[in-house]
Amino acid sequence: MNGAEALIHTLYDAGVEICFANPGTSEMQLVAAIDKHPDMRGVLGLFEGVVTGAADGYARIAGKPAATLLHLGPGMANGLANIHNARRARAAMVNIVGDHARDHRALNAPLTSDIEGAARPFSDWVKTSASPETLAADGAEACRAAMRYPGAIATLIAPADCAWDEAGAPAAPLARPDIPKADDAAIDDAVKALKSGAPAALFLGGMAMMEDALFQAGRIAAATGARLICETFTTRWQRGRGRVAVERLPYFGEMAADTLAGLKELVFVGASEPVAFFAYPGKPSRLWPEDARLTTLAGARIDALDALTRLADALGAPQTPVLQEAFTPPPASGPLDPMGVAAALSELTPKDAIIVDEAVTAGLAAFPMMAGAEPHDWLMLMGGAIGEGLPMGIGAALAAPDRKVICLQADGSAMYTVQSLWTMAREKLDVTTIILNNASYAILNIELTRVGAQNPGPKALSLLDLSNPMIDWCAMSESMGVPAVRTKTAEEFRSALKEALAVKGPRLVEADMRG
Amino acid sequence: MNGAEALIHTLYDAGVEICFANPGTSEMQLVAAIDKHPDMRGVLGLFEGVVTGAADGYARIAGKPAATLLHLGPGMANGLANIHNARRARAAMVNIVGDHARDHRALNAPLTSDIEGAARPFSDWVKTSASPETLAADGAEACRAAMRYPGAIATLIAPADCAWDEAGAPAAPLARPDIPKADDAAIDDAVKALKSGAPAALFLGGMAMMEDALFQAGRIAAATGARLICETFTTRWQRGRGRVAVERLPYFGEMAADTLAGLKELVFVGASEPVAFFAYPGKPSRLWPEDARLTTLAGARIDALDALTRLADALGAPQTPVLQEAFTPPPASGPLDPMGVAAALSELTPKDAIIVDEAVTAGLAAFPMMAGAEPHDWLMLMGGAIGEGLPMGIGAALAAPDRKVICLQADGSAMYTVQSLWTMAREKLDVTTIILNNASYAILNIELTRVGAQNPGPKALSLLDLSNPMIDWCAMSESMGVPAVRTKTAEEFRSALKEALAVKGPRLVEADMRG
Repeated sequence: MNGAEALIHTLYDAGVEICFANPGTSEMQLVAAIDKHPDMRGVLGLFEGVVTGAADGYARIAGKPAATLLHLGPGMANGLANIHNARRARAAMVNIVGDHARDHRALNAPLTSDIEGAARPFSDWVKTSASPETLAADGAEACRAAMRYPGAIATLIAPADCAWDEAGAPAAPLARPDIPKADDAAIDDAVKALKSGAPAALFLGGMAMMEDALFQAGRIAAATGARLICETFTTRWQRGRGRVAVERLPYFGEMAADTLAGLKELVFVGASEPVAFFAYPGKPSRLWPEDARLTTLAGARIDALDALTRLADALGAPQTPVLQEAFTPPPASGPLDPMGVAAALSELTPKDAIIVDEAVTAGLAAFPMMAGAEPHDWLMLMGGAIGEGLPMGIGAALAAPDRKVICLQADGSAMYTVQSLWTMAREKLDVTTIILNNASYAILNIELTRVGAQNPGPKALSLLDLSNPMIDWCAMSESMGVPAVRTKTAEEFRSALKEALAVKGPRLVEADMRG
Repeated sequence: MNGAEALIHTLYDAGVEICFANPGTSEMQLVAAIDKHPDMRGVLGLFEGVVTGAADGYARIAGKPAATLLHLGPGMANGLANIHNARRARAAMVNIVGDHARDHRALNAPLTSDIEGAARPFSDWVKTSASPETLAADGAEACRAAMRYPGAIATLIAPADCAWDEAGAPAAPLARPDIPKADDAAIDDAVKALKSGAPAALFLGGMAMMEDALFQAGRIAAATGARLICETFTTRWQRGRGRVAVERLPYFGEMAADTLAGLKELVFVGASEPVAFFAYPGKPSRLWPEDARLTTLAGARIDALDALTRLADALGAPQTPVLQEAFTPPPASGPLDPMGVAAALSELTPKDAIIVDEAVTAGLAAFPMMAGAEPHDWLMLMGGAIGEGLPMGIGAALAAPDRKVICLQADGSAMYTVQSLWTMAREKLDVTTIILNNASYAILNIELTRVGAQNPGPKALSLLDLSNPMIDWCAMSESMGVPAVRTKTAEEFRSALKEALAVKGPRLVEADMRG
């Protein structure tokens, strides 16, 4: 078999079952190899940001990497923003980037670029294969690198001739790396911090937000009175009725500092010290109280469930944490606003749904209102590069075909990777997309004044405005094969959402909140 | 004034009159500074690839750089593919990339990344400003770097606090760098090559494709019998009736080699040795005859007009080159195919139109059929990263508001930066977009077999297919405010194109060639 076939077999044997692809000429032998493999699934995205964002969503739900197939340096560049987001989510991803054949690279053909140089700032592991015979082994190494707990970005550059030349056999998969455990001293330190009698909190993130780990955190809270607080943005938060609830740190620094004020002991699990998303003139970037003592129980790459379980046991904590009660907000009526969206969503979201949240300002109401809804997974944008919501919806739906995926999506962000709708239609994915349409980069209207730009004029405001022309979201969606409906009142939205959720397949509901 | 205001003033004083922007929080003070400046124009793109591709199209027509405004590393990453294309076009571009405030960078907030590391593989000049006081001077330096003949990519990284803190005054613009001239020895060598009596060609590219330079090339051809051949892809080709015609090197290597076969003397002006776009198993990548002598009259960064004029004069060439005669192909009829598109386009394209060609396979007929049309500029994709056609149309239209821009655009490529249509509608740009719809990455169906993947199966073919679901191009276009019409016959297409070209403003005509 050729290098491409050996590589695809190796990836599959290492647990990579799906390849999100936007290939070009230099990847044709890899396309042919996917074709020949009996089980490797290939999913086409019409833009590379769709491909890499889908791989992130897939990894978060499947707990293992997908592959991506990208076309040389510029194709990879188109996917880098969502690779950045995935890396910040510590999601697992194996990027296969085609390159010119080795002899061809020196000729400086138009698509030549320094792929390794561009990959390195956004990858945890980068390698260019040196020969057809080593391509498959490099693939095995990439998979192992990507599977570092909880996940990492591996980027393998495959020169075209390494893929098309004879290569022998696939490589044997490498063992998944062990998950490092917290050491005993860290458990002892955390016990001391929580038993000090001073106001304390567990500050959670990463894998500590999974249901089983949160259960242990709840035990600790029950035993010590510590508050449970988490990062503003979390990779995958298992929440809803019957689970242990956590306070979410607010986005804006002043509010975050208020939330943490008075705490004397902060114990970190799967998270590090909270800092402001952006700096602002004259405002602090470090958000924790200056006199608080900081203790790390487990960093993001240390087994969170194990650390929390051992800590709970060391504290002699009960097996009965406080669990979130069911709560459904009253139905809304009249002109649609964020509360109307939140009320319907909270009422109608089915059990085990996956919510992909790139709602930015318009979705702020939905998050707290969903606290007592049916149990669900809440996925957020981790790297701040907007344009990942719809792609993550694709990946989540492919990782969990029996679960409903709901993309809670702001209009401005949706436009970055709007091509995602086409893949949802093509693959008949069970994704309901809610477009929260305020015809604006609303967050930036807030940020403009927060950075000290007072009295903005029409030119500044026009750079944050999406209303000229208005985007017709239904036409946009249907142009790519996803049936869509526009709603302007809370009643219309509830009814449209109910209908969309009842169907197995892609739907779009526009929540038109322009009044 | 603050650093942002000083920078924007400096850019404008250096000749940068327009800023294509997709800003975020870390660029809000730059948005406010654009707002305050009386003349700097800000144009919003809904995705960064739109922004950078527009800057490329602008520079090619205006002959000077636009600025782009991009949001930290991931925002820049989204624009890198078209920065790559622009760099390969040797277009001038000044990228302003916001970064976190200097103190904030060390905190590793979610949007932190190695911006310089990611910029360097795609830029000719990269700098991170160190202070508010130096930001404007860095901007002046960036403009000078971008204005290196014929153009270059300068990327300036502006930490937020350098933009919002007090900075004093704007910096004085720096002189545009001198344009290097060919030395006399190069002229002598070219004279010898062309007088050798052996079959000879001028091999042209870059600035040698401008009308004035081609006139000189035509004089040389008239004096020596040398053929005029140019690169397969050229940055800006001024062609049509009344201009000097040039043979275009074919895309596929075998055909290119055939075109060059028998030539013993190749003299390069604004171009270098022709190599295959991609490598293929067992096929040569170097396309020129092995026994040809290669002479460089002027590399891409040497004054092409000056070199050709001096060479023509040294040869005592007449002032009467052969000029292209007017030619209009007969009208087409029946089901629409590439010839039908070409016939109508050739007949209807108005004088001084700018054609932006990202037509890939479906547009192959149009190029030769337009040889004798009204004089026009033909812009091509230089870096091979598809998704630049529509953005370049935006930039070209803003650089030349009195000229008609026609985007000849393949469907697959259009999807990468389809958000461009929104900016066309918003800015009421005089762009007619022709979508050549074959519902396929047709070029890849050809390439799949060329790399040796015989008998592709359904999985491989599905990764190259855009027909499931079909994209409704009219709905897509109208969802973003650009009126659109679908045509299925040559007659319908001609009539729709005529109507679109008669309007001043954005229109889309779908050429549905699926039969």
